[in-house]
Amino acid sequence: MANPLFSDREVSFQLYEVHGAGDLCQLPAFADHGRETFDLFLASARKIARDVLFPAYRPMDAEPPRLEGGRVRVHPAMKEIWPRLVELGMTNATRPSEVGGQELPVLVAMFAGGYLSAANGAATAYAGLTAGAAHLVEAFGSEEVRRTFHEPMISGRWSGTMALTEPHAGSSLADVRTTATPMPAGPGRYLLRGNKVFISGGDQDFTENIVHLALGRIEGAPAGIKGISLFAVPRLRPEDGRLVDNDCSSAGVFHKMGWRGIPSIALNFGERGDCVGWVVGTPHQGLGHMFQMMNEARLMVGMNGVATASAAYHESLEYARTRPQGRPLAARDPRTPQIPIVEHADVRRMLLKQKAIVEGGLSLLAECARLADLVRHGPEEDRERRRMLLDLLTPVGKSFPAEAGFVSNSLAVQIHGGYGYTAEYLPEAWLRDQKLNSIHEGTTGIQSLDLLGRKVVAGGGDALRALAAEFAAVEATNEERAGLRAALEKIAATTMELAQRGLAGDRDGMLAHSVDYLDAFSVLVISWQWAKMAAAARRGLERDRASADFYRGKIAAARWFFANELPRVSTLCDICLTDASFVEARPEWF
Amino acid sequence: MANPLFSDREVSFQLYEVHGAGDLCQLPAFADHGRETFDLFLASARKIARDVLFPAYRPMDAEPPRLEGGRVRVHPAMKEIWPRLVELGMTNATRPSEVGGQELPVLVAMFAGGYLSAANGAATAYAGLTAGAAHLVEAFGSEEVRRTFHEPMISGRWSGTMALTEPHAGSSLADVRTTATPMPAGPGRYLLRGNKVFISGGDQDFTENIVHLALGRIEGAPAGIKGISLFAVPRLRPEDGRLVDNDCSSAGVFHKMGWRGIPSIALNFGERGDCVGWVVGTPHQGLGHMFQMMNEARLMVGMNGVATASAAYHESLEYARTRPQGRPLAARDPRTPQIPIVEHADVRRMLLKQKAIVEGGLSLLAECARLADLVRHGPEEDRERRRMLLDLLTPVGKSFPAEAGFVSNSLAVQIHGGYGYTAEYLPEAWLRDQKLNSIHEGTTGIQSLDLLGRKVVAGGGDALRALAAEFAAVEATNEERAGLRAALEKIAATTMELAQRGLAGDRDGMLAHSVDYLDAFSVLVISWQWAKMAAAARRGLERDRASADFYRGKIAAARWFFANELPRVSTLCDICLTDASFVEARPEWF
Repeated sequence: MANPLFSDREVSFQLYEVHGAGDLCQLPAFADHGRETFDLFLASARKIARDVLFPAYRPMDAEPPRLEGGRVRVHPAMKEIWPRLVELGMTNATRPSEVGGQELPVLVAMFAGGYLSAANGAATAYAGLTAGAAHLVEAFGSEEVRRTFHEPMISGRWSGTMALTEPHAGSSLADVRTTATPMPAGPGRYLLRGNKVFISGGDQDFTENIVHLALGRIEGAPAGIKGISLFAVPRLRPEDGRLVDNDCSSAGVFHKMGWRGIPSIALNFGERGDCVGWVVGTPHQGLGHMFQMMNEARLMVGMNGVATASAAYHESLEYARTRPQGRPLAARDPRTPQIPIVEHADVRRMLLKQKAIVEGGLSLLAECARLADLVRHGPEEDRERRRMLLDLLTPVGKSFPAEAGFVSNSLAVQIHGGYGYTAEYLPEAWLRDQKLNSIHEGTTGIQSLDLLGRKVVAGGGDALRALAAEFAAVEATNEERAGLRAALEKIAATTMELAQRGLAGDRDGMLAHSVDYLDAFSVLVISWQWAKMAAAARRGLERDRASADFYRGKIAAARWFFANELPRVSTLCDICLTDASFVEARPEWF
Repeated sequence: MANPLFSDREVSFQLYEVHGAGDLCQLPAFADHGRETFDLFLASARKIARDVLFPAYRPMDAEPPRLEGGRVRVHPAMKEIWPRLVELGMTNATRPSEVGGQELPVLVAMFAGGYLSAANGAATAYAGLTAGAAHLVEAFGSEEVRRTFHEPMISGRWSGTMALTEPHAGSSLADVRTTATPMPAGPGRYLLRGNKVFISGGDQDFTENIVHLALGRIEGAPAGIKGISLFAVPRLRPEDGRLVDNDCSSAGVFHKMGWRGIPSIALNFGERGDCVGWVVGTPHQGLGHMFQMMNEARLMVGMNGVATASAAYHESLEYARTRPQGRPLAARDPRTPQIPIVEHADVRRMLLKQKAIVEGGLSLLAECARLADLVRHGPEEDRERRRMLLDLLTPVGKSFPAEAGFVSNSLAVQIHGGYGYTAEYLPEAWLRDQKLNSIHEGTTGIQSLDLLGRKVVAGGGDALRALAAEFAAVEATNEERAGLRAALEKIAATTMELAQRGLAGDRDGMLAHSVDYLDAFSVLVISWQWAKMAAAARRGLERDRASADFYRGKIAAARWFFANELPRVSTLCDICLTDASFVEARPEWF
């Protein structure tokens, strides 16, 4: 059976039985929509994913982009794929109709993106980056900037990128050095000079032009993040109705272990002193503006983590069902036929763990997407609470799929045995792809500092209380409820203790274990999602006996997660509070 | 600073301060040796590792073997490397002088192999496989077989492989189908016909000949593992003083995600009906004989896991010490210089975790190696106890470095950030390499069944009691002692309960969580090793203040392991006993 990438039954379960996609249509913004339009959009996305993107995945992995004569050539399949992504609306699906969008809920668009990302994450990323860049221009650009850049990007004639990282400062955006000198030519235009690295899609040969949404520093700006501005820096700049070279050159293509369908580029701005950038939004507030794109991109990375893990899960599930090997433990007569390996308990352990990670992660991203919709279009009085929750969950939505997805994709290789280690099967490629997700768009360490250093302590813990209220609303079993409550109380007490250290000036004592804290917090949040899904499955079992196997699988995965993962919360919290081994370790001890 | 692969100080600490390499010279078998000969051997190994093998690592990874005109061409660097490995003695170092060996302790040879494996695991594997194959021939071969195959292998003119796996039966050796028909030509010769896959070094072009130690089934043999025999199947067979084609053809080279310096081959025996194999040992007892090579290979794989992780650890340590980025959490003035990332607590967390895995794994392998020496050369009265311990620890020695080493190598990538994901740095290659170690020579699942289904229950738990006695001998702190005791008691009680299920006929109930059991057991065993190392470090601190930083690092890593890993034992044991989620899950629920 061909790999479905995501199970369609799963997607409809999450959308309509768990996350209330149908209810969203009662909001004025989505009044023109209904389950039919959502399903049509999803059907188009999954068809393109399965028929167009997925067949190109392995060829694009095998023949990565090359730098030739100063330009980057990507796999020719992108020339066919790109118009299909644009036509589907992936550059603009969730934006209002005034700006050419379909005003679809983020919730629906995210599932559509999930199919595409599972089929071919690299190909899909070009569209995601273009969408994020266009949205930045739409939200913060002057009238001139919007007129110049917006329509060409959403129509797919031009693509977009985000250009933040510089060679000497990966995660440390305060140290961005790219300079911007005001041009006499007109307000809002600057001459840029600087070097950027790891720019995904930073060059390619399937669109007429590329627009880099880049961070730089206007001459005389304050040091640090308060002096960073945002610029639109096109590869070719419009001048007198023509496009002329804008002095953005590709200095090199990084050879990556995965994501090989999209180049990662070292870009030089202004080597000849002729690179023009249009400031986007308010000078010196560029980082704040960029956070719109970063937050969107973080959830997109989370979805890629889930999607890559989902494709690998389905591949290993099919393999396990069809690969005969060995016999039941209790019946080893070598003359009996071998059994499919799914009959071995340990193989089912690996499959159920993958399922729990994939579907738990998907549900969290659905939760985030729905919150994003409600923050924008829901009742005014709930928006602040929902924004807080979305802010709180974003670092988890970015990092859990990356970290747990890497474990999950490793299990997909393991189930394939020796074959899994070879290019005859796809899991090894998905394992290579997944590794990037804990690095780009803010490493797991950065996400953990965001969670513990900002999100959980903001407003004196309001977000955590809002989360507790969400937990209480789930129709959980008594056992699930008790488990969730104990874990939440442990996290709350740990948070309090750590916050007090921070208030007392001991930032290291507060934040040294932030990654362990993020791990514990993620387990709690995913347990909550599994409780929600298990509740929906119990309801479903009463109503829809034809789907009984599906619902029983849901309940089994919830059981697995509660039994195997939730107990880690308490251990990790204790570790956060008590282990000072590496905090005290000096560099010279290693 | 160039990557040391292993720290020399670490190696001397483990050999002489923890695992008593010096004491071994008091055994008659090693009376000709002393610390000087050991150190000379180690110095030669590390020199070859650093000067010859390591520089060839990346080129061999970048240009993997190719099948051309029916023969496999490997990277030309092997033509230089191979004689150096043979000259060092890696085909025969631990064998007696009567058979051309140096009679070095396995303990010393294993550390030498560690340097080589860290430098270039693929290159080293050719020698390891040849050593194992030669040892099989030495131990079980008839006089004719030994005369024909032994000297050519240990002299490096011929290489050796192990040829077990067949396409339809990876882990299930009971299903081996290769057939062997007795030849009238002479007793002990058979015509072989069959297909083998994943044969490491199954073809190459730097030795005159290749000898496959292959499993097959003599016509009329019983079904299952009781009908399997062992054969030496050369690529070219000696006939009238010449070497003639022996009808072993390379049907394909697998494209692997790592270990790309050594080909993994699909081999066909007897396509033309002219493939002669010499039976090695007793017909139908081939699997038992092969276990000698498998057990050696399992520890070799474990050492590769440790070695690959050690190289990656040292690479990330050096990067962390020299890469400036960000500022202390409490001092974010952007005008101050950036600090090396090793100053960030989370980076030290990742480094200390790597250190704990690498050195904990190394110490376990040293323990196993010393046991192997004492089983063969130690006091008679202790041999049985030590053999039991070695048998018990082998599945852990094989799988812990593979599984934890994969996590460790992933951290090495993470510390390198975006650069770590690219081929500009080595960690991505070591991450790809490490993945194989949980698959070849018996998957982690197979190791876990060996541990729980056989080793811990053998002799009514004698091995576990022997282990407890070893624990008691460690000069641990009270806290370490209490932690070890509680964990051991938990494991013992869990083992008892699971064994009772097995005795009651519920094999699935006993073994379903075997991988979780192996995980718990591994944590216990590595904690024990850390307690031993911490004790030696405390002694060292009193004696050798010049090494104070080294010893403090040891104590910090022990502290990390006890605080972060040991608590998992209890949770995992509970899971083994109570979680039935995937046991009860039906294939159709997924």
